[in-house]
Amino acid sequence: MHKLAVAVCLSGLLSQGVATAQESAAPKVILIIGDGMDQQQITIARDYIAGYDGRLTLDTMPLRSSVQIQTVAEENPSMPEYVADSANTATSMATGIVTSAGRIATTAGTDLDVPTIMELAAAARFGTGIVTTSSVTDATPASFVAHVSNRLCESPRAMMSTDSNGNGVLSGNCPADRKANGGKGSIAEQIAASRVDIVLGGGERYFAQAAESEKRMTVRDLAAATGFRVVGTAAELASLKRGGKVLGLFAPSTMPVQWRGAGGAQAQRVQHDENGRVVLPEPFGCEPDPAYGATPPLTSMTRAALAHLDGRSFVLMIESASIDKQSHVRRPCGQIGELKQLDDTLKLVLEYAAAHPETLVLVTADHSQAAQLVPETSWLAGMNAASPGYFARIRTPEGAIMGVNYATNDSTLQEDHTGADVPLFAYGAEANEIPATVRQTDIFRIMMRHLGLKAPSAGP
Amino acid sequence: MHKLAVAVCLSGLLSQGVATAQESAAPKVILIIGDGMDQQQITIARDYIAGYDGRLTLDTMPLRSSVQIQTVAEENPSMPEYVADSANTATSMATGIVTSAGRIATTAGTDLDVPTIMELAAAARFGTGIVTTSSVTDATPASFVAHVSNRLCESPRAMMSTDSNGNGVLSGNCPADRKANGGKGSIAEQIAASRVDIVLGGGERYFAQAAESEKRMTVRDLAAATGFRVVGTAAELASLKRGGKVLGLFAPSTMPVQWRGAGGAQAQRVQHDENGRVVLPEPFGCEPDPAYGATPPLTSMTRAALAHLDGRSFVLMIESASIDKQSHVRRPCGQIGELKQLDDTLKLVLEYAAAHPETLVLVTADHSQAAQLVPETSWLAGMNAASPGYFARIRTPEGAIMGVNYATNDSTLQEDHTGADVPLFAYGAEANEIPATVRQTDIFRIMMRHLGLKAPSAGP
Repeated sequence: MHKLAVAVCLSGLLSQGVATAQESAAPKVILIIGDGMDQQQITIARDYIAGYDGRLTLDTMPLRSSVQIQTVAEENPSMPEYVADSANTATSMATGIVTSAGRIATTAGTDLDVPTIMELAAAARFGTGIVTTSSVTDATPASFVAHVSNRLCESPRAMMSTDSNGNGVLSGNCPADRKANGGKGSIAEQIAASRVDIVLGGGERYFAQAAESEKRMTVRDLAAATGFRVVGTAAELASLKRGGKVLGLFAPSTMPVQWRGAGGAQAQRVQHDENGRVVLPEPFGCEPDPAYGATPPLTSMTRAALAHLDGRSFVLMIESASIDKQSHVRRPCGQIGELKQLDDTLKLVLEYAAAHPETLVLVTADHSQAAQLVPETSWLAGMNAASPGYFARIRTPEGAIMGVNYATNDSTLQEDHTGADVPLFAYGAEANEIPATVRQTDIFRIMMRHLGLKAPSAGP
Repeated sequence: MHKLAVAVCLSGLLSQGVATAQESAAPKVILIIGDGMDQQQITIARDYIAGYDGRLTLDTMPLRSSVQIQTVAEENPSMPEYVADSANTATSMATGIVTSAGRIATTAGTDLDVPTIMELAAAARFGTGIVTTSSVTDATPASFVAHVSNRLCESPRAMMSTDSNGNGVLSGNCPADRKANGGKGSIAEQIAASRVDIVLGGGERYFAQAAESEKRMTVRDLAAATGFRVVGTAAELASLKRGGKVLGLFAPSTMPVQWRGAGGAQAQRVQHDENGRVVLPEPFGCEPDPAYGATPPLTSMTRAALAHLDGRSFVLMIESASIDKQSHVRRPCGQIGELKQLDDTLKLVLEYAAAHPETLVLVTADHSQAAQLVPETSWLAGMNAASPGYFARIRTPEGAIMGVNYATNDSTLQEDHTGADVPLFAYGAEANEIPATVRQTDIFRIMMRHLGLKAPSAGP
């Protein structure tokens, strides 16, 4: 919450030989984040969408690197935690620092605000944009534009509690971030006050709340007061006029997902018959989720953002958020469909980059996730072995059966994340200068370097 | 078992722009396989060995690609299976074809022998070498030098059964591969008859068996009769004279591993107290496994193999086998120690390659494995959630706790493999020409291309 900026050291970049100086006009960065999109997720999606011998657009990217995910403990920031969340990982990419789980562009333990690449780009009069299938106030987009102690401090109402979801998970200190207490207010209010040129995603319900210390103004009204045009339908998105700031909110919170298991099928616990023998779940395929309705897809939002930002330097973050969220709740078709949204969007972005060679395209994940591609029948099935946790058998379009399990915890609610490195794909003139293994904070430095921006030194 | 060679098509290589022609004298290929070494394994090992901000030698490799693993069904080779075993994956790398699980350099369904890169290299009078921490008759090394319908056809005794391990897992047709039935005999006998210049690993017990149809000769005697010097101790390995063929057998079967959990600790099922509350397992660190004794490490075997092959073109396959085997039996310290063996060996190999710039170094895994890096306490621990399957909490040298779980099946015996892409790392002049995503069969083509070798067309 504090207004101090902390130093962001760029020397690591130079010593690693990342990205030489870029002289071309109007450099552009497009960062695509697949939330939870680790290599298990990519293989599962490829096997379903393109087949075991097929290729995703992702697979055609010219450069691949691997990203070391780093998290530290809030109570002792010199000590690591080996599994991350989407807040601290997005903070690493947005600001270049390592922080603790749940934090949004603030430092572990000391709670200092750290400038984000969007803020630094806006200060240099570059364009900035955020596109996501989650609420625009969710951890990943929030880390590029807001500063709070906890990802759950999303809206004015959430600011009243130190433990905004009431279960002790990722608890923070939202009251200290209230404007009345010298803070910047909730994530929604910080977005409303921001200089970001275009913000598209879900989260309308948070902007409908009364703004803190304002009479009869919602957060949405605050946004309009700072110059945002607020839109809410696919038709408005398609007919967007250029210029000014745009806030598009197309769902109350997280946007619906495109695919589901046939008839709503998802992973389940393996059953046993009266003799204790394994009864595997019936295989199912994927189908369009009827709840998706007229929701604008990620490609449409991306096309609108590119049209809005085109013609100057910009940094655009595009997130397919529900790869993660659908994995948490063990819905393999949901996660595959949302990875397909990302892959379709990448195709569009690569077409843009081919026409604008000053564009650096990065695709990555923030952390790894629970879904595992496992045998559809265990190699020890003859001994009555089967998957623990939750298990699905997916009938793929090529006619085979793919086993997917989720077994990080035994809760009925949600899976945990996992801690493996995630992939980084790159396209653009400087892509080949990215080392084969990077730290997640290097993604900030690679983007800053391409844009020709310098992070500020520490100041009061 | 049939003596027909099948066509291996190189056209895929050209269309993918892999590896241009190599004119330098005496091209060399060193292929290092970490069995089961997927990205979860690498991150777990890095966090333990080098720390959350540290780097393995693997992490310093200049190029990274991702390998699409491919397996087909024995009964219908036009249909995929999405999770592989070490036999069909090593066959893909050794021969360039996709086959069914359990097969050693033979085709799915039709059981045709396919020439391996070691055979093709030997025919071109290039040096060939195999170094492994498994039995030299195990699936990965076997696929480079033998042709049988099933990986379990390891020794003369195993050849008497169609289902060599008696439990229906990976069953094959060993009797058809017996010499008496027109086959080439067991894997051990095929190694004994082979032209490989140096073969180092475990498996002494298989070579002590009586050879098929021979009077008073063991397989070891057969090997001696074809020119192999047979050695069995670290001292003999260290004083090896150059020239001729060498067979080093340093353990009865799989070699012992270097590390174990303190006091023998391994992953276990999470317990609950009398009130049903989770009782997490006590954290433990790793320690040298006293069973390792005077076993020669992978570095020593690799040093001996390089000295033996130096001075001409060669292809050398080096495998750290027990990353996989220790993961199957849920021993995280075992798997970490064997990945460290691979990483230490890579350091040695890179020093060799730096002095011999005509060397292409590839490091990869054959398939992904069960170990997952998970939170040491679930994010839903407040709701009494904990890991299903088997779970370990590892105390790392930097003082934090790392959670590792194994949850692909609920057997008390062994985990299943998983199906994600695995990493491919490359070093050498042509490394940068390797695409960012390849199929596993491309590894054969990349190596062949570097060596300037052509696969034969279809035979009679």
